[in-house]
Amino acid sequence: MAGTSDAALRERARRVIPGGMYGHQRAGLFPENFPQYLSHGEGALIRDVDGREFVDLLCGYGPIVLGYQHPGVEAAAAAQRRQADCQNAPSARMVELAELLVDVVDHADWAYLAKNGTDATTTCLTIARAATGRSVVLVARGSYHGAAPWCTPGLAGVLPSDRAALRYFEYNDHASLRAAVDEAGDDLAGIIVTPFKHNDGEDQELVDPAFARELRQVCDSRNAVLILDDVRCGFRLNFGGSWESLGIQPDLSAWGKAVSNGYTVSAILGIEALRDAATSIFSTGTYWFAAVPMAAAIATINAIRDEDGIAAMERAGELLRSGIVEQARANDLAISYTGPAQMPYFRFLADTDFERMMHFSRVALDHGVYIHPRHNWFVSVAHTDEIVARALAGTEAAFRAVRDRFGDG
Amino acid sequence: MAGTSDAALRERARRVIPGGMYGHQRAGLFPENFPQYLSHGEGALIRDVDGREFVDLLCGYGPIVLGYQHPGVEAAAAAQRRQADCQNAPSARMVELAELLVDVVDHADWAYLAKNGTDATTTCLTIARAATGRSVVLVARGSYHGAAPWCTPGLAGVLPSDRAALRYFEYNDHASLRAAVDEAGDDLAGIIVTPFKHNDGEDQELVDPAFARELRQVCDSRNAVLILDDVRCGFRLNFGGSWESLGIQPDLSAWGKAVSNGYTVSAILGIEALRDAATSIFSTGTYWFAAVPMAAAIATINAIRDEDGIAAMERAGELLRSGIVEQARANDLAISYTGPAQMPYFRFLADTDFERMMHFSRVALDHGVYIHPRHNWFVSVAHTDEIVARALAGTEAAFRAVRDRFGDG
Repeated sequence: MAGTSDAALRERARRVIPGGMYGHQRAGLFPENFPQYLSHGEGALIRDVDGREFVDLLCGYGPIVLGYQHPGVEAAAAAQRRQADCQNAPSARMVELAELLVDVVDHADWAYLAKNGTDATTTCLTIARAATGRSVVLVARGSYHGAAPWCTPGLAGVLPSDRAALRYFEYNDHASLRAAVDEAGDDLAGIIVTPFKHNDGEDQELVDPAFARELRQVCDSRNAVLILDDVRCGFRLNFGGSWESLGIQPDLSAWGKAVSNGYTVSAILGIEALRDAATSIFSTGTYWFAAVPMAAAIATINAIRDEDGIAAMERAGELLRSGIVEQARANDLAISYTGPAQMPYFRFLADTDFERMMHFSRVALDHGVYIHPRHNWFVSVAHTDEIVARALAGTEAAFRAVRDRFGDG
Repeated sequence: MAGTSDAALRERARRVIPGGMYGHQRAGLFPENFPQYLSHGEGALIRDVDGREFVDLLCGYGPIVLGYQHPGVEAAAAAQRRQADCQNAPSARMVELAELLVDVVDHADWAYLAKNGTDATTTCLTIARAATGRSVVLVARGSYHGAAPWCTPGLAGVLPSDRAALRYFEYNDHASLRAAVDEAGDDLAGIIVTPFKHNDGEDQELVDPAFARELRQVCDSRNAVLILDDVRCGFRLNFGGSWESLGIQPDLSAWGKAVSNGYTVSAILGIEALRDAATSIFSTGTYWFAAVPMAAAIATINAIRDEDGIAAMERAGELLRSGIVEQARANDLAISYTGPAQMPYFRFLADTDFERMMHFSRVALDHGVYIHPRHNWFVSVAHTDEIVARALAGTEAAFRAVRDRFGDG
């Protein structure tokens, strides 16, 4: 069980928060020993409200790319905060951040800043529709693009009309893509796609370069807009757009998470040909122009570059992967470990409903490692060799416990 | 003209930001001497990037309710920031803030926290539809409920299907409400309405209590959900929901702006009967559980109460109103000054396209007062008698300039 302070907060929350907690951060998705409430984060370590410390392998579901409380990011945010944050107009930080994003991301000729990943993906669809005068956007089935009615994975309260202009294809599947394109006919506004397939609870699948090329070709031949949803992957796989290594440029990209190390900012980046369409739409919010998150984002992106952050995360991810794979082998447990090193996902082949993975997470937590039983993990620049070793000490115990309870295989 | 630093930033922004700037904070909506970029805010004073200081009568378009850099709010945010902000799970602040909102707002039995006002209004519609299993939501024509495709005032990139389940009525108009209710038939999920009519560029109009009662009765008789969009008015008109003084309780309410004095948080509050529906939906975001904005919101709400903030804003608003009305009279200029004292809107009756109001704003700015030519103003607790007197010295000059250029009348 989680601790007594956590239990007391849960009891209070049951009265004043729907379901006791909602959304992706509800503890009900985890084994019962996971805390619902956390109190501290520093580097790669977090503490719950009962004082238990854990090595964190979730990084706030992605945004923490440099580690919690990164000194450079915190100093930049603090300096900006002493001047101004949310005002009647933006600060100079907005121009600096837009320039930095345009400089760092190949396909970007301009930047449109927002708050949530969902703001960014939704605004991308609106820009694509404004640019083309068409309606239909193709979406890979099961891909997560946010939690607005058009994309939320929970269907309660969602209307068919919210998704009337979407058509679906299977990720990496040429035939299903062609069928969806045919279905869209001459009303194809765009295609939105994640850099690789990172659907929750499934093996991750890198994009087939030929599939990415076909997406680009379809959009070129139909004058449709290719939208890369880089909210989860951006600045973790590559210092730039996540498909730059493939040589494939989207027309629009949606960003969030690693952009600002936990400060509330997201971004839409786009090509010159879509500048007028981006100017024509009206998408805004009370806090969208606040200066402190932009100062934090500038410091974050610079620190990723200066600390060679992508390489550091790759190294940590590779250490973690080789350790986990070896532990599984030594315990005669068959696992699938997929995805880029920095954003791995792992499951037991013998699991039918995550029963081994739930036990693995439970025991890992008891040994000081916080992992998600059915969502990809994240590592950050703060995941040093020593931190990864601590994590692996916990997973070693967890593998033994899975073998003890479920047997090998 | 705005200053040289501002001009240089605008030139840089033209390359990397669509239209040079977008959304409600683009300086293109103001006379040419207004800055696009601000650098400092403290109390009721702001400074632009060229060092010009202004008395601010816009308060960040609403969120700044206690004045910029309120010591208590900043101290609470800083203390929380040293512990944790954006993590894998919320902090205890989330429970405390939900308890406080439920305690302070009569109709609230639970709180669901989000980031933007648009998140809050959109989630209210989703909850209403989940609760009723119906689709149609009634909206007052011209009311601003955010900038998602279903509600943005800019129609570029918006599809008819985004609004297929909306029906419209005229604010305070019984006949049009009945017609919309009839049109919805047995598919009426709810009605969303602002506490008073505060459409941009129009005289503001308080709600007719009989109209508010009819909204409540319609929802009761049809088992539909009455949603009060309190994003702009909440905690400025009343320490609680904005219709509590009328004795009318909504089923759901959307909050933002004044809740947190500029920190990024919004909220959905609801009645017990809608708790299960709120639990059933999936609406979330990367930053929704961040602790610092919640700590700021707790401090803000407590400070509004402890400093008797509503009364302070009423006093400042009344001083401003009587000063403006007297200045207009003394200059033989006919104006309409409408709305609650804390959120006034004023225009010249002789204006056909805001030409006097634009000149008024231009001259006021040159005399150190920042006002919007076609959007309601806001005052905060930091608007002391001395600050209001400074503002009125600027508007006095502006009235004389309008009379000089356009004549009386």
